[in-house]
Parts: sequence; structure tokens; C-alpha cells
Amino acid sequence: MDNMPPTSVMNFLNEVSGSFPSAISLASGRPSDRFFDRLDPQALLNALVVYERYSAGDHGGGQVHSQLLQYGRTAGLISELVAQQVRSDEGVAARTDRVLITSGCQEALAVCLPALCPEPSDVILVCNPTYVGATGAAKAGRVAVAALPNSGPCVAEAIERAVLQLRRNGRRARAVYLIPDFDNPTGRVLDSAARRNVLQVCARHRVIILEDNPYRLFRYEGDAIPPMAALDEVGSVIYLSTFSKTLTPSLRVGAAILPETIFGDAGACRVLWEDLVQRKSFVTLNTSQITQAIVAGLLIEQGVSLRGWIRPALDWYRANRDLMLSQLDCVFSPFSDQIRWNRPSGGFFLTLDLPFRFSAESMNECARDDNVIVMPMSFFALDDSQDYRIRLAFSAVTPEQIRTSVTGLGRYVARRLGRELPSLVGGLREG
Amino acid sequence: MDNMPPTSVMNFLNEVSGSFPSAISLASGRPSDRFFDRLDPQALLNALVVYERYSAGDHGGGQVHSQLLQYGRTAGLISELVAQQVRSDEGVAARTDRVLITSGCQEALAVCLPALCPEPSDVILVCNPTYVGATGAAKAGRVAVAALPNSGPCVAEAIERAVLQLRRNGRRARAVYLIPDFDNPTGRVLDSAARRNVLQVCARHRVIILEDNPYRLFRYEGDAIPPMAALDEVGSVIYLSTFSKTLTPSLRVGAAILPETIFGDAGACRVLWEDLVQRKSFVTLNTSQITQAIVAGLLIEQGVSLRGWIRPALDWYRANRDLMLSQLDCVFSPFSDQIRWNRPSGGFFLTLDLPFRFSAESMNECARDDNVIVMPMSFFALDDSQDYRIRLAFSAVTPEQIRTSVTGLGRYVARRLGRELPSLVGGLREG
Repeated sequence: MDNMPPTSVMNFLNEVSGSFPSAISLASGRPSDRFFDRLDPQALLNALVVYERYSAGDHGGGQVHSQLLQYGRTAGLISELVAQQVRSDEGVAARTDRVLITSGCQEALAVCLPALCPEPSDVILVCNPTYVGATGAAKAGRVAVAALPNSGPCVAEAIERAVLQLRRNGRRARAVYLIPDFDNPTGRVLDSAARRNVLQVCARHRVIILEDNPYRLFRYEGDAIPPMAALDEVGSVIYLSTFSKTLTPSLRVGAAILPETIFGDAGACRVLWEDLVQRKSFVTLNTSQITQAIVAGLLIEQGVSLRGWIRPALDWYRANRDLMLSQLDCVFSPFSDQIRWNRPSGGFFLTLDLPFRFSAESMNECARDDNVIVMPMSFFALDDSQDYRIRLAFSAVTPEQIRTSVTGLGRYVARRLGRELPSLVGGLREG
Repeated sequence: MDNMPPTSVMNFLNEVSGSFPSAISLASGRPSDRFFDRLDPQALLNALVVYERYSAGDHGGGQVHSQLLQYGRTAGLISELVAQQVRSDEGVAARTDRVLITSGCQEALAVCLPALCPEPSDVILVCNPTYVGATGAAKAGRVAVAALPNSGPCVAEAIERAVLQLRRNGRRARAVYLIPDFDNPTGRVLDSAARRNVLQVCARHRVIILEDNPYRLFRYEGDAIPPMAALDEVGSVIYLSTFSKTLTPSLRVGAAILPETIFGDAGACRVLWEDLVQRKSFVTLNTSQITQAIVAGLLIEQGVSLRGWIRPALDWYRANRDLMLSQLDCVFSPFSDQIRWNRPSGGFFLTLDLPFRFSAESMNECARDDNVIVMPMSFFALDDSQDYRIRLAFSAVTPEQIRTSVTGLGRYVARRLGRELPSLVGGLREG
């Protein structure tokens, strides 16, 4: 990550895509476009009007619209509806007066990280690999980042080790950034026990948990695990919410949701809230009231739950994941001894472990020679521990593209290993 | 400012307004709502569709819309149209590939200030008083701020003095933040000579000029003075543009426009551009493509110039300014020896100098006893030099409100001075 920050990742990705336009991309974790037809211009207008009627009450919608067009409340206009949706869809007891609406979840990170780390000796803990937007926000905010050791048996122990190690060096771990459900980039899920252990360790060391949860509603099987914010009993979790994966990334509406207290201290929570609101005003004044109103209107139309809305996408992503897993089984069966991958129960990504280093140059060769673009996991890493892995995204591709691209990836891998792959011919025909 | 940051100002203002709902506010510098009817929901939809047709070209608008709903280019979607509008309305030779679209001009400040001040010893120069959003962005970005001395005969000399003073202390002035046209909060305009002098001094000391220009199109008389970015011949001006005053603040679309080179160095400009784009991605990923498309559609409908669009508002603001000035003349004629104010040739604000300290408490008393809310200039100051001044905004009030509120202010001032004001009775009847 340090040598491959977000825009560099994106620039490199764009360069590769531009150089090999016919290559299929398994690199992009964007939501599928195919469900956007429910958000055509007229639908966006309707949502705006629905929200204006809803909030007009006695006085006319015209007055509400005129207020919408003005500068607005820094903390946002739709905190109550977002709190309701998070309570209903996520089971997080969100208090309306602790929901800070942000210009996408990225701004929530950009505002929270510096606020949580006022001292130069303060540090944010992150998994390694982790989402580049988190380390990027830390960099922009001049906040130090430390990677959790991957050696430990579990995240909680890794956090404890990092906290103590930093303390020995006169540093203080103030917060840990986690995506407990279907992590980006790994696809990993923290089970209930792991979440409770992390909560215990963080409470003991007064480490705030920044729980980022963009993929949680996209679970393809098994019982949902409560978010850490729902399991939190002491006031240690700031819950980050976004509509980029459920509705559309184009409205740039997200939220940072504070607990009732910070480690039992309601006053400390109020102070943090006011600091976050002030920082938000310094960064973007307030989030567009037009896009906030559109999000609110869509929420109202959906009964303030997005479970029904995302169903078609959920089924599509599940089928894509299943197809990618079966295609991986088929293509890589000859390498079962050397190549492994996880079977994520949700989200957009999975991790493939390779017996060789997969660099930016490898990404380029694979795109050029085998028409498939995959993301080196090293792009998300803080060290060289991820050099033998890649991230595969199955959210924004068609079934045929999955068949063709995984087959192409197999061809690339076979060549790197100097092996023959008869089965791939079948794979190719399938594609 | 240090003890009264933006949200505190806003919170205090909201408290006072909330405590005295019948008081008329001359404190808010927002655009007037009365021209927002041209931006009703249907008009916003039309603008979106106009942009989609415009950029659809050969392929269908549906595809464009689907792309709009996705994650977008970090630097923005509508740089070319914004560059055209700035060239046509401001005379600034904006290069499309140097226009960074931001989530309102505030984000441009939040992104530029830390980028221009990489070292802890780097400093941003600001006028005193100045716009709280600039000092706020510096605070959020952990960037040091130094006030320009008000003693100097002109801004250029004040900049030179500050640069040398800082240098003696081992600090480096990297940039100066200026609103050369109808400054917020003072209403001051820098004349042509002053601008050229500032450009010379800044070129000599390699100080970047951040030219913020939200009010420039709102000139009520006299010839427009070219923006500093238009006078810049060496590559020293970053031009900040916004649609919050011309169209509506609710779309949150602004821009930072870089020169062709930084002090003659094209490579340095490219490096700065890439740094700004990266920081932008860390703060909000990209600006909402929906609100960008609405701005673009409105620009297209207006022939990519907003001069015609703002005409009704311009006339309204001019009449408000004229009425406020004549009412000030009428109400404060008995105090002509003790009270002075400037006669701004544009913008939303004027400055009133008082013979006594006007504090937050004074603001409260004036609202409570005389039904008028005015902004202590100290809210915008970095020291106590502004304690005897207030800022009066005439943009968001009606003629009757101007008459009544200035009369009320006169009553408050008379009481503070222990004087009688017979003329005010007439003033009151007028109101």
C-alpha cells in the first residue's frame, strides 16, 4: 500500500485496462450495473419528490425544496431515516443524534481517523492487507498506521500484540479499522466469537473499533452474524454505513454512527461527536442535500429497509460467486496441491493463493497474454506478505466473462508453472 | 477564529436564531432563496437528461446514465464544461486537464492546503479577518496559519513582511489565501494594481496564491477587474471555483483549477495535480456524478455561461445593497463621527466599524432587545483586532427586513452610546 496508494492502484488499473481493452476485469469491486435501471432519471426525481412530501408535513413541498437547495445542517438532513434503516437492516441500535451523514463512507474515514488520533504518537491499526481507502484516509489525515500481525491465531490476539508492541515504543493504538463481513480485499468473515474477543480486547485497551460494513447485506448463505456495533456493550464501535453497494455509488451518501457512550462516558461521546461534526464542516461543509433527499426518498419507498431492494443483486452476486468457485475448481483441479482459494459466504471478493509472486508486471502480462485483469493482493498490503496472492472480484462481471476469465487465468498460471492444462480447452469452449 | 471555529460560529448563530426566532438575521451570507424556483425538481431532472444527451453522442443516454450511477473518475466528469464556463465568465485560461472537480469549494480548500504545506514548518497566509472555512480547512489538515499584518499599506507588502518574518523564525510561507473580489467577511476588493503587486511578491518568494472567487460575478457597478489567475503570467495562482452562489449550494460542486505550470515548472504542476487528485480520492473518492451532471446540464442550457442566469439575483442583491447603504446613511447620520462602513461594489457583505467592542454577548443582546442578528467580525479574526467591527450580509433578506433590521441595529448602537435617536422613529415607521 505504502508504495501503491489508491489512486496509483486506480491509475495502474486504468492503464492496464486501457492497454488491453478486450481483457476481462476481475479487478474491479464495483456493484453490477444491471440493476441500475431502477434508478433511471425519473426514478431519482420521484425519490426526491417522495422525500419532500414526507418532510413537508403541513407546509408545502415547495418550501421544503427551497430549503433543500440551500446550505444545510452539517451533520446531515436524513439522520433519522438512516438510523431507522441501520436499526432494521443491520440490528445496530443507531441513535438519530449520533448519525453523521457524510459524502460517501470515504469522508467518514477522512473525518474519523484524524479525530481519533489527535497526538503524533497515536496510531490506527489495520489488517494487512486492507482496503486502500482506509490507509489512504490515514495518509491524507497525517495519521500513523500500523499493520496487525498476520501470524497470530486470531484478530483479537493480533490487536493485543500490536497494542503492547506500540506501547513499548511510546505509541498508542487509538482505533482499529475492520471489515468484519466479507472483507475487502480478502472476503474473510469474523465469526461471532472472534468479534466478541476483539470487543473485549479493544475495551480493555480503550481502542475504538471502526466497523466498515459495505457488504454485510450481501450474504449468500448461512446465518448473518450481528455487526460488532450490535454486540458492543461498552461504547467502543463507530459504525460506518454506505449506500454505494446497496443503491448506487453516485449519490455519495454514507454515515458514521457513534455509540451512546465512548467506553461508558457519554460526555466523551458528545465531545467526539462535536469534533467530528466540526471536521466534517471543514472538509465538505455539508453533504449534498439533493443526493441526501434522493437516498431518503428511496428508503421511504422501500419501507426504510433495503433487503427487498437488493434481493435481485444478491441472487446475481451469489450465482456469480458459485460459478466462479466451480470454474476455479474445474480450471485449477490439476494444481490442487499448489493453489488455494477461500469460499466467501458473501461480498464481492475472494482470495487466490499462488505458488509464485504475482506483481504489477504479472498483472500486465496476464492482461496482455490471457485477456484477464486481476488485482495483485500486494496492492492492498503494508509489506511483502501478500506478494503471492491475488484478489478476484465477481460482482461486476457476467457468467460468460467469469468462465472465460478464470480459464484465461488458469492458462496464465499454467504457463508460470510450466505445466500443461488439457482441461482448459474445455474451459475455453465453455467460455 | 481560533476560539471561534466555523461550527462554533454556526452553532452560536443557530442558538441565537433559535432563542430569538422573530429577530431578522443580517448574519447569514447565503444566497437568496427567491430564485430557486428555476431549480424545481423537474428542472433538476431536465438538467440531468440534457447532460446525458450531450455526452451520449452516438451511443444511447441509457448507457451514459448507467455510467453516471457508478463510481467515477476521481478528478471529475465535467472538467471541460467547468473550464469553458470559467474561461467565458471569469476570463481565466483554465485547462480542462487541470480542473479538479470537488465536493464544493470547501473540499478544494481541504485538499489544497495540506498538499501545499507538506512540511511542519510550512505556513498558509490568510487575511485577518478571513473566511472561517479556509482557517478551518487548515486546522483539519493540520496546517499552520499566519495572519497577514493589517498595519501594512497594502496586501503585497503585508505578504512580503509575513514571508520574511516567518523565514526569520525558520518557517516557510507556501501559499496565501485571498478573496480578491468582494471579500468575505469584509466586502473589500483588491484593485488591479494591488493584484499585480501581490502576484509580483508571491512570484519572488514562490508563494502560491489560492484565489477564492465565489462572489466575482456579483458586481453591482464599475468595471470588472481580471481575476488574479487571469493576470498570472508565471504559474502562481490556484483558482477556486464554486456553483454555490451562482446556482445552488445544495449540489456541492466546486473546483480547484491549476495553472499550466507552477512558477514555470510544468513538471512541478503535474506532480501537484497528481497529489491533489490522490488527496481528493482519500477524502471523498469522487464528487457525486449525479450532482456533477445536473451542474453540467444547467451549464449547457445556459450556453456555458452563468451571466444570464444570475442576472435577476444580481439586480436583487444590488437593490438590497443600495437600500442597506441608504438605510445606514439615514439611521447612523447622527453618528457620522463615530461609525463608518464601506460601500462594497459587489458581493454579499459590508463591514461596519463601531466605537465600542461588539462581542458574542453583544450579538445576543442586539437580537434579544432589537430583533436583529449581526455577525461580530471577531468571529472571523485571528486576534482581537476586529473586536470593534461587525459584518452585515444583505443577500438573504427582503427590503422590509433591511429597513427594520438596520433601524433596530441603530437603536442598539444608540443605547450602547447613551444617545437619543429621534430619526429612528421615522425609520421604524418605514420598517
